[in-house]
Amino acid sequence: MNKKSLLALSLAAAGLLASLPAAAQFAKAEDAVQYRQSAFRVLGFHFGRLGAMANGKMPYDAATAAADGDVIAAVAKLPINAFVPGSESGHNTRALPDVWKELPKVKDLNAKMVDATGKLAVAAKSGNLDQLKAAFGPAAQSCKACHDDFRKK
Amino acid sequence: MNKKSLLALSLAAAGLLASLPAAAQFAKAEDAVQYRQSAFRVLGFHFGRLGAMANGKMPYDAATAAADGDVIAAVAKLPINAFVPGSESGHNTRALPDVWKELPKVKDLNAKMVDATGKLAVAAKSGNLDQLKAAFGPAAQSCKACHDDFRKK
Repeated sequence: MNKKSLLALSLAAAGLLASLPAAAQFAKAEDAVQYRQSAFRVLGFHFGRLGAMANGKMPYDAATAAADGDVIAAVAKLPINAFVPGSESGHNTRALPDVWKELPKVKDLNAKMVDATGKLAVAAKSGNLDQLKAAFGPAAQSCKACHDDFRKK
Repeated sequence: MNKKSLLALSLAAAGLLASLPAAAQFAKAEDAVQYRQSAFRVLGFHFGRLGAMANGKMPYDAATAAADGDVIAAVAKLPINAFVPGSESGHNTRALPDVWKELPKVKDLNAKMVDATGKLAVAAKSGNLDQLKAAFGPAAQSCKACHDDFRKK
């Protein structure tokens, strides 16, 4: 690839972005909706697999668990940045308007979720199924806490 | 949350999964399609932002760059696992059938991309914009290599 096409690729890759500070990352509100839904989908898959192992629905595999924990810890930090103004209505979103009305509460619940999933990742890397089981419950609860109040049923 | 509802949540979270080995992770082919598209979307966002910084389209922010690099390195490893048999047609996917016909080649390109994005993450954490610029090009090229031959225009 020559420099010109590399530049074109970079610009295309940056197409979602305006030249804005990091706090305003999405060119369109719909991009924010799709970004957070994508992050939640990846998160949910790996969380689901870890839960299946923690609950004996799937054979425990230490390497898979460790990898899942790392993905969860990394991706859990992402969605909170995408509940931007303008992305609360008129979109195909299950997020309730209360997210934007009570953002400090959502951010507090998010901080707890990031903490709990960080601990889950450590437990998932321990190679010890009992540690995984012990950390999974609080992490699941930290997800559910936000779903209960801020997500459409 | 009591243990019963926690178990219910875990089972719900595991709903995407059958009791199958790690190699067969998706209950439905459509889940695999959505999973890989979600991972690519998250990857593309952070890659785009890093590229905007590398190309001077957005002010360089060392902390944002470092965080983007970490997300990219973690998420870049995921999509390859979701090009499962049965997810190649009849779905809303831009992946060309050649992905499944030439899987060893795709896996080789993927390994190069994982390597290049790993190096990009190291450069993004250096706090040095020149290092970021130097690592971005090869990483972008490693993405494009697969897009050129295996993704619909």
